[in-house]
Amino acid sequence: MHFMTALADAWRQHDSLLCVGLDPDPARFPAHLKGRPDAILEFCTGIVDATADLACCFKPQIAYFAAQRAEAQLEALIDHIHSRHPAVPVILDAKRGDIGSTAEQYAIEAFERYRADAITLSPYMGRDSVEPYFAYPDKGVILLCRTSNAGGSDLQFLNVAGGAGEERLFERVARLVAEDWNASGNCALVVGATFPAEIARVRELTGDMPLLVPGIGAQGGDIEATVKAGRSAAGTGLMISSSRAILYASQGEDYAEAARRAALATRDAINAHRQG
Amino acid sequence: MHFMTALADAWRQHDSLLCVGLDPDPARFPAHLKGRPDAILEFCTGIVDATADLACCFKPQIAYFAAQRAEAQLEALIDHIHSRHPAVPVILDAKRGDIGSTAEQYAIEAFERYRADAITLSPYMGRDSVEPYFAYPDKGVILLCRTSNAGGSDLQFLNVAGGAGEERLFERVARLVAEDWNASGNCALVVGATFPAEIARVRELTGDMPLLVPGIGAQGGDIEATVKAGRSAAGTGLMISSSRAILYASQGEDYAEAARRAALATRDAINAHRQG
Repeated sequence: MHFMTALADAWRQHDSLLCVGLDPDPARFPAHLKGRPDAILEFCTGIVDATADLACCFKPQIAYFAAQRAEAQLEALIDHIHSRHPAVPVILDAKRGDIGSTAEQYAIEAFERYRADAITLSPYMGRDSVEPYFAYPDKGVILLCRTSNAGGSDLQFLNVAGGAGEERLFERVARLVAEDWNASGNCALVVGATFPAEIARVRELTGDMPLLVPGIGAQGGDIEATVKAGRSAAGTGLMISSSRAILYASQGEDYAEAARRAALATRDAINAHRQG
Repeated sequence: MHFMTALADAWRQHDSLLCVGLDPDPARFPAHLKGRPDAILEFCTGIVDATADLACCFKPQIAYFAAQRAEAQLEALIDHIHSRHPAVPVILDAKRGDIGSTAEQYAIEAFERYRADAITLSPYMGRDSVEPYFAYPDKGVILLCRTSNAGGSDLQFLNVAGGAGEERLFERVARLVAEDWNASGNCALVVGATFPAEIARVRELTGDMPLLVPGIGAQGGDIEATVKAGRSAAGTGLMISSSRAILYASQGEDYAEAARRAALATRDAINAHRQG
């Protein structure tokens, strides 16, 4: 199934715009899991099984697996999601970006080895660094646009000479993707929750393109502003990502139940602002 | 040893500015290696042993290993280089770029797991996405600046409003790195061989900062222009990378000898233009 179709189905079936980020840090695992050979897989499947019906997608961050030599556990985790929770697509958060021949290898890694439904990429090297991923017509390609970290402004907020006058670099990226790179309808953008006005601007530039929005926690601080700025006309269009606030809601044996409560609260806080 | 010291020593001891890129593609391996369980490691150690005394650094491209589930072979390859050829530093070509907490995991992957001496990174997410790598004071951090692919111009060639008037985005990246991010002297830049005028501009902006230059082959087309544009005052300052032209100089059992001949020819073609 096409990533965009699977995402739209999950938005509707699970009544959720929540993306559950899987950033497993063994130092923060519950005591009963620490030291087990497959602790990362056990921890993550516990989170996945407890939250799948509340999520529109899962987003494993590959750096956490690679740092622990846990590639095999990442393969097993994505297999688990596909077999037990086939309605929830998987985004491999990898932020790759390289020339075409190397991009072909990264696409094999993401889509053939890990069987992810979508991947995050950096736009810095331009269109031909993204094209090899389009050879997989059902897969999603999610480009960094405006990131939520402090340094995100160093380049993304620079004024660049534009077709219709000056614009910020992140606006140029949004326009490039919406007007040129998205010919096959595979693209989405990463826009951090830190700056709702910029989410609104990207929404304005991209029609109903899905936006992956990191930078929000179960605490709900910016949820209202984020949803109001980023929702599409249909009240969807967002994958609002929460990782640590869900994964580490409890560090006890009840971590999965606590994760479910946090995910439910976040999903409902999002849903309160989808219409109106 | 500090990456910059090791690089300077290798430039001198091996009289070479040649970086041997390790992009192992099993489809192009000699017949006698095909199908062996550790074919990637065998192929690459053959190349490494045949070219180490002609190189200033090795640059394995992690995508080729990840696509083949060959992380263990990449670990073994880097161990092999460190133990057999300790004078030649290893750059992990990974082009990572992510928020601080994720960057910490990628730094563990590159510097603790793989024991690379340097890593390539994307600057798109800004300074705080690079800082976690500086926690390893001996390691090199090589930022993408101007890449050699056609799409490299999509963003890197945009005019941005600068401190001293308008400049291209790649010039801004060069200045940011040289004037701000390089406080500890760990930084280098990637500048493709396609545009010698832009190599010269980056050299002008960055003093004697090392430049990693991909995009050149044993055929020698742009070697003269690249070296003249990019050499430092001392006639060094460059890591000129060649991968496929060396790795696949022959697809027979003599592939390592053929690789040595190609590396020697490239090294000497580079050296012909280092002074003058």
